Amino acid sequence: MRKPSPKAAGELELIRVIRERARRSGPAGLTLGIGDDCALLRLKPGEEAAVTTDLSIDGRHFRLDWHPPEAIGYRTLARGLSDLAAMGARPLAAFISLGLPPDLTKGRRSWMGRFYDGLFALAERHNCPLAGGDLAQSPVALADIVLVGAVPRGRALLRSSACSGDQIYVTGTLGGAAAGLAQLSELARVATTGNITIPKRLAGTLQPHFYPEPRVSQGLWLQKRGAATACLDISDGLSTDLLHLCEESGVSAEVDAALLPVAPGATLDQALHGGEDYELLFTTPPDTKLPRRIAGVPITRIGRVARRSLNRPLITLRTADGVKPLEHRGWEHFAPR
Amino acid sequence: MRKPSPKAAGELELIRVIRERARRSGPAGLTLGIGDDCALLRLKPGEEAAVTTDLSIDGRHFRLDWHPPEAIGYRTLARGLSDLAAMGARPLAAFISLGLPPDLTKGRRSWMGRFYDGLFALAERHNCPLAGGDLAQSPVALADIVLVGAVPRGRALLRSSACSGDQIYVTGTLGGAAAGLAQLSELARVATTGNITIPKRLAGTLQPHFYPEPRVSQGLWLQKRGAATACLDISDGLSTDLLHLCEESGVSAEVDAALLPVAPGATLDQALHGGEDYELLFTTPPDTKLPRRIAGVPITRIGRVARRSLNRPLITLRTADGVKPLEHRGWEHFAPR
Repeated sequence: MRKPSPKAAGELELIRVIRERARRSGPAGLTLGIGDDCALLRLKPGEEAAVTTDLSIDGRHFRLDWHPPEAIGYRTLARGLSDLAAMGARPLAAFISLGLPPDLTKGRRSWMGRFYDGLFALAERHNCPLAGGDLAQSPVALADIVLVGAVPRGRALLRSSACSGDQIYVTGTLGGAAAGLAQLSELARVATTGNITIPKRLAGTLQPHFYPEPRVSQGLWLQKRGAATACLDISDGLSTDLLHLCEESGVSAEVDAALLPVAPGATLDQALHGGEDYELLFTTPPDTKLPRRIAGVPITRIGRVARRSLNRPLITLRTADGVKPLEHRGWEHFAPR
Repeated sequence: MRKPSPKAAGELELIRVIRERARRSGPAGLTLGIGDDCALLRLKPGEEAAVTTDLSIDGRHFRLDWHPPEAIGYRTLARGLSDLAAMGARPLAAFISLGLPPDLTKGRRSWMGRFYDGLFALAERHNCPLAGGDLAQSPVALADIVLVGAVPRGRALLRSSACSGDQIYVTGTLGGAAAGLAQLSELARVATTGNITIPKRLAGTLQPHFYPEPRVSQGLWLQKRGAATACLDISDGLSTDLLHLCEESGVSAEVDAALLPVAPGATLDQALHGGEDYELLFTTPPDTKLPRRIAGVPITRIGRVARRSLNRPLITLRTADGVKPLEHRGWEHFAPR
């Protein structure tokens, strides 16, 4: 992390504004922020640091011609915060490396300025200061987000510790982000110019895709109460992330289709396979009683963990027609253009 | 940080090899590495975390047609380790986000495999485990490196605390990386094909540019002994980084040209303005006695810190002809292609 090299006056002014806002975005454990070779972060006694990085690239994880810059900034940070949430860690600080074509960095109302507006809106809600990063000219727009959090030693929620007999839960609803993306894709198909114009009536439908809510408070709640045996966030879709949980825990799982909290406007398919919902997927011991909501967000039991068996697929789906293998499709964001 | 999405078999095999090697690359304070939503890092009591991120992009910070993949991997990590060195922090873990065109990721001897060979060679020397990261397809090759280190609370070396009267020192020699780059540039000029072939006789000359040595042990030595009033690493060139030190510390500085440890084969100009030497630039109180070498590396006094004055430029150069302003030129790596 370094001070920027000589840049255009408008860009320098924007960087000054960003530094000023970064300073205000949260207290947490930040003792030294932007401006020196490293940022300095302080943990409380008995805590360990949780660190995650996520790279987002135009055409793969977002599209400059589809997404408002505010949504790209917001989603970039949401990806990182959701990883902290999945471990039950409290956010300490964020770092962002931006690679941008020169025309995106010019002026206060530039693409970069609006990107930071979206990022700071979410950062401030989670008291997560922006502690540093890097900025470079790049032929393709990209953002690499780093989140550092803190969690009591040995108490982080892992994806490798689910047990046979555990109940499987999710927070919120599923498929909302994929449904929004499908709408966006349809708008792009019928658009006459390169960029999409979003009609007001669709603002609500697109909200889960543009502005997903990372479940930081819910992850902290589970961690503090020792309520979950395993946890991860649903970034690649329920089917893929549940498979990860089963692989890492050495178990299998059955999901009951009738129990799934399908988001309004989403299909069962989108709820099962759509990515970027950023809800938490967690398991609890068989006899655990949970409230209906955690920190204001409904939680839903969707199935059960079972022993692994050579004769059975790792994840299955129970429907009215019986039990069948639950295919995991992965989540590819966007195909390369 | 997530498990990779479905990928080609060769790429999955390479990722498996990388994960295996990452596990072996060092002990440090890593309690959970690649595979979960976050890595978990443990500090010793009384320590705080130092975090830095540096983005490197093809055509700006390296060139696929000029640099061997091993050198790019090595230099990527060296940039981050050098930031830790500048704070006097011990490395705890590294994270790397790679964005690569598909043809760079195929096979064990792929560009990506050789990139990791260079990165791990340096990581293993510094007992710095690779604890995570991200991999995405990108039209341009890029690498964002994150380093997390540990330093006793309140004892990190800052760039903002130099005082009038302090002596100015550097580790090693200056200008070697710029001299190597000039050689490389000349090879490219006379090359008949797109890619450069490097003659054996130039291996030594290019070493400081391809494989600079981050001064981690020297930074730790200074921090442990409380010997330096301020410190930063010379990544943008002595003139630019000394200006940063003066700006942040509210002082001015004079460099004596006759004292500069110019690298073999380098010019005075390259020693003053060439970037990427990754030596440490530090200040000590006037009466401090330092050994000639710190952890095996020679150190050289090159000038003195003075009070800031409206009538004098922030940094000046003393030569046989008298004292003149020391122009700071920044360091632009490569011009955009």
